[in-house]
Amino acid sequence: MTTEHMIVEIAKKARRASRQIAAAETREKNQALLRIAEMLDASEADITAANQKDLEFAKEKGLTSAMMDRLKISRPVLDAMIKGLEEVAALPDPVGETARDWVRPNGLKISKIRIPLGVIAMIYESRPNVTVDAAALCFKSGNCALLRGGSEAFHSNMILADIIGAALDASGFNRNIVQVVPTRDREAVTSLLKQEEWIDLVIPRGGEPLIRFVVQNSTIPVLKHYKGVCHVYVDKTFDMNQAVDICMNSKTQRPGVCNAMETLLVHEQAAGEFLPVIMTELQNKNVEIRGCEKTRALFPHVKKAETKDWHEEYLDFILAVRIVDSMEQAMDHIEEYGSNHTDVIVTNDDKRAETFVKNVFSSMVGVNASTRFNDGGELGLGAEIGISTSKLHAFGPMGLEELTTTKFVVKGSGQIRT
Amino acid sequence: MTTEHMIVEIAKKARRASRQIAAAETREKNQALLRIAEMLDASEADITAANQKDLEFAKEKGLTSAMMDRLKISRPVLDAMIKGLEEVAALPDPVGETARDWVRPNGLKISKIRIPLGVIAMIYESRPNVTVDAAALCFKSGNCALLRGGSEAFHSNMILADIIGAALDASGFNRNIVQVVPTRDREAVTSLLKQEEWIDLVIPRGGEPLIRFVVQNSTIPVLKHYKGVCHVYVDKTFDMNQAVDICMNSKTQRPGVCNAMETLLVHEQAAGEFLPVIMTELQNKNVEIRGCEKTRALFPHVKKAETKDWHEEYLDFILAVRIVDSMEQAMDHIEEYGSNHTDVIVTNDDKRAETFVKNVFSSMVGVNASTRFNDGGELGLGAEIGISTSKLHAFGPMGLEELTTTKFVVKGSGQIRT
Repeated sequence: MTTEHMIVEIAKKARRASRQIAAAETREKNQALLRIAEMLDASEADITAANQKDLEFAKEKGLTSAMMDRLKISRPVLDAMIKGLEEVAALPDPVGETARDWVRPNGLKISKIRIPLGVIAMIYESRPNVTVDAAALCFKSGNCALLRGGSEAFHSNMILADIIGAALDASGFNRNIVQVVPTRDREAVTSLLKQEEWIDLVIPRGGEPLIRFVVQNSTIPVLKHYKGVCHVYVDKTFDMNQAVDICMNSKTQRPGVCNAMETLLVHEQAAGEFLPVIMTELQNKNVEIRGCEKTRALFPHVKKAETKDWHEEYLDFILAVRIVDSMEQAMDHIEEYGSNHTDVIVTNDDKRAETFVKNVFSSMVGVNASTRFNDGGELGLGAEIGISTSKLHAFGPMGLEELTTTKFVVKGSGQIRT
Repeated sequence: MTTEHMIVEIAKKARRASRQIAAAETREKNQALLRIAEMLDASEADITAANQKDLEFAKEKGLTSAMMDRLKISRPVLDAMIKGLEEVAALPDPVGETARDWVRPNGLKISKIRIPLGVIAMIYESRPNVTVDAAALCFKSGNCALLRGGSEAFHSNMILADIIGAALDASGFNRNIVQVVPTRDREAVTSLLKQEEWIDLVIPRGGEPLIRFVVQNSTIPVLKHYKGVCHVYVDKTFDMNQAVDICMNSKTQRPGVCNAMETLLVHEQAAGEFLPVIMTELQNKNVEIRGCEKTRALFPHVKKAETKDWHEEYLDFILAVRIVDSMEQAMDHIEEYGSNHTDVIVTNDDKRAETFVKNVFSSMVGVNASTRFNDGGELGLGAEIGISTSKLHAFGPMGLEELTTTKFVVKGSGQIRT
């Protein structure tokens, strides 16, 4: 069987299984999720053995220790998977909800009812815990999952799929509801991206090259974000404590994630008071600064920011700083260099905050709050399968509801169109 | 300037203009729409002259009289464009609406605020009225429109774009908010579909080959439907008048549109009573029947339905008829041969209606109502720019709201993440 043929077969199997999971009761789904959790717990030895194969192979290939670390399923990582399953089981089920309803003048009762998307393919790198997290979120929202992790996590993902499959089976579900692509062959990804007849959505997660590859090659709708170039803009009137807390939290609490601040914009009337304070704090945390000309006029020791710095997602203890002469210039900067991800204003002026909120079109626009809140859990969506900066379907964190759509249900008593 | 270079330029111009229209007040937008209507009315002579060029060219190319008819901007067609603009001006503006809001335990005030998508490209065939309708819907929902109509309507579309541009200009808007691609070059479409940096959504409207071409070549999200293979299923207990009215309306009121019935499914316990009545009615309207074996056992003169008939979107006075032995078989048939567009059950049994509604995943699922109600106007959305059978973003008719997305607005008082 060729790789392409195999991919068509697993995609068709997923499509056929999708009716069962779409119609399943919430209670049945939750029981199955908890059973997966139990069976993962009971299978630690098997998981560790499979994971060991991946780790040995990775060592031979010369992966960095950071990459090895992401690949390893230690007991705390397994516990986090189990806890994730329990949390998803506890979340409300969006399927079957009435999103809206109304009655037409001719008596037709219209409602928009929430239904699953159908079959969701995830393409991701390294971390095998994504396999379990993604399976849980797709399953709870009534969807089939086709999972393709990084080739270096192949054995880990296959054993996780086996355990999930056995738990589904034991719970009366078709095991094709969650499938891991059973090959390392790279051609499998290209084939998967062409199965628009059987797959409703592709979610890539990983570095920008992976995501660009998926967008270039997919005929299936894709939800993705390339990068998070997030800004904090400190306005001319501001609260010093708030501004310092927000900037430090946005930059240094976890610099390696997409909702960390990458560029700080400061109104020129605020610069004299604010910059000396924040510079000291940032230096205490060993944050490297790259500044605009005006910043360097105040702080001559600061490295010069080049144009490419304004585009950069450092994901590190590095920060670009620019002094702007107006809020309009700050908004222009965000429009030109931003990535529609997360942008925040710190201001004491409600009216100016409103203008900023109205004119910045990012998935999260914040007022006097850290950029780090752009996260499914923090915003109250429960869990998230990723953050979208595509404006179609979902813009921002994607929780269970974002893995569903709505259909129109029309109830009549013989109405016809005239 | 190469075609590709020209396309990049107009896409960038649209992106730059998108901030103005996104932030515009409803009143300003409505005034501009009404001004476009006035200026179209005043420009009848110019429009007719440009349209005449297209008609002459079409005649030389040997277009059918039906195609010539669709191309012609007669006075009633111009009046319909003007009326359409007035109707869109009268619709509520979705932009700026709070779709939902809540407060987090840490005091953060979260809201989901409706915003425009940004830049929308429409690719369509023949009818020049789509140029005006699409421009109006995109404009009212705060989006820029990049319009590419059929090459045979080139001069008509260019004059319409000129008039719209002049009206925008006179209303204080940037004329790049609505642009018609100023070339007949087919390469322009391929280039347009690669401008994902500047264009947020592509909506193709036309025959299946056009839509498949767009899906295969676009790196921009696409909303589309390939075809409407719509079913009416008459259950074992039913109201004869309702069943006849619904079937006749679904099949014959306007057979050339996507929400017309293409296949009638009848429960075997209903067939003996229902089929003789509906067959007579259908024959009176000259509808050709293609029946399954069981149907032909009752009506030997009926043509045999081949497998391909169950897949067919006839768009004509032709109907495929199948007798099923259960509602489950009807739902399996819809799953296998349907197109997720519109499917209706006629039944007296509310419980069975619920089962049908739960298990059929089409953009509109109807109970005792005509398939013809799957339409933006009929469902109460106001106007529509098309019907989507992609489940992502919009599933079913797309009105103004479906041309928007939501962003998260987070208002705090210095909250940081711990």
